[in-house]
Amino acid sequence: MSTPASATTIVLVGTTHPGNIGAAARAMKNMGMSRLRLVAPRVFPSADATARAAGADDLLAAATVHDTLEEAVADCALVIGASARPRALSCPTVDPRAAATRVTEALPGPAALVFGREHSGLTNEELDRCHLRLHIPADPGFSSLNIAAALQIVCYELRLASLAEAGDRSVAAAGEGVDHHEMERFYSHLEHVLVELDFLDPANPRHLMRRLRILYNRARPDRNEINILRGILTAVEKYGATLRRRGD
Amino acid sequence: MSTPASATTIVLVGTTHPGNIGAAARAMKNMGMSRLRLVAPRVFPSADATARAAGADDLLAAATVHDTLEEAVADCALVIGASARPRALSCPTVDPRAAATRVTEALPGPAALVFGREHSGLTNEELDRCHLRLHIPADPGFSSLNIAAALQIVCYELRLASLAEAGDRSVAAAGEGVDHHEMERFYSHLEHVLVELDFLDPANPRHLMRRLRILYNRARPDRNEINILRGILTAVEKYGATLRRRGD
Repeated sequence: MSTPASATTIVLVGTTHPGNIGAAARAMKNMGMSRLRLVAPRVFPSADATARAAGADDLLAAATVHDTLEEAVADCALVIGASARPRALSCPTVDPRAAATRVTEALPGPAALVFGREHSGLTNEELDRCHLRLHIPADPGFSSLNIAAALQIVCYELRLASLAEAGDRSVAAAGEGVDHHEMERFYSHLEHVLVELDFLDPANPRHLMRRLRILYNRARPDRNEINILRGILTAVEKYGATLRRRGD
Repeated sequence: MSTPASATTIVLVGTTHPGNIGAAARAMKNMGMSRLRLVAPRVFPSADATARAAGADDLLAAATVHDTLEEAVADCALVIGASARPRALSCPTVDPRAAATRVTEALPGPAALVFGREHSGLTNEELDRCHLRLHIPADPGFSSLNIAAALQIVCYELRLASLAEAGDRSVAAAGEGVDHHEMERFYSHLEHVLVELDFLDPANPRHLMRRLRILYNRARPDRNEINILRGILTAVEKYGATLRRRGD
């Protein structure tokens, strides 16, 4: 099955320090990702990259090297480019959580997440090849993240989105956690109430439930929160029953 | 104002490589955090730490060094300890998103996030000092994160929770983004409908709206999603009006 993590290629453009390529590979593999492409790296392969990969050298061995970003993302349906600086004429901006949602919505279409040079990022021409701009909401007073750290955050969001897609809640807010079956009972209850409200037409459901699933999966509700949401749905049902009885 | 990020102290226990302390300081400062405590670091201060801090040396200068974890977390109301390994008798486990929620719920109480040694993590005795165990949902086949990478993920979740607490949506899913005022309109609408449903008693609101705010802020809904949620609330209002009319 295609997941947000497995469907996403990480593209590193013009990386100067090979150690950063290795750290990026490690961050990716930690989050269950494997597709790495390099555009004109200064030094690659490199012992520094292998050392920092700390066991993710299979990703380095499989990484492909390209001359241009255009070539590296040629087969990608959705291209998201990281950029620390605001641009005058910029494409729509997403944070890492929203980026993972966009990738999820575009499945099974392959996506690319593009990170630029350590000091200067992506050029305007390279950003023009991207459909979305990724911005990490760092402290504006100290906003320059290490490239592997930035990548770690985005790969983490893709991993959470992938676990949610796979219905795997085992690693969510455990202790007070909600398992897959409880989430499914919530979604059934929600769907039932939306039909009762005439908000969801079973004959023409569009993507409504899919969109609500992406939203609530992203929030990773714990048991207390699911109990509140289920309570609200039950209150809607009782409200209808009470009004109907009054009318009798 | 106390935020999840400002209220949280990062505690590094028994760090072997001073470079990791510097990388941790950088990750923290990127996410607007400043309180760093070190328990029995092998080498500190260190030029390696300062180099990897890449400008976050003010955090290193202000960091305090302690002999024991007990001493380092003595003033913290909530202590969360990172652990990659499952333990037989373990306290409740949370992922980074749930950890940020717990810190938010405990405000203004100061919290501590504790990271252990590079190779062996925290001892069982140290974990016994923690109220919650933090688990990062990494790929089980390659689950060992670099300590600064693990910290980056958690500090990112604390930053998002802090921005949400401060009502700052400017960096959310921009492009399709929802600003603070739109979120407030959604919360007013939700509150109004919950009162109408008799689910929320205005005379005894408890923490219901606060809990729902934490949940929806964590999801960081975009404009499409807020439109769907507002649409559901309007459908509940229409449903009531229709049933009442039928009863006339």
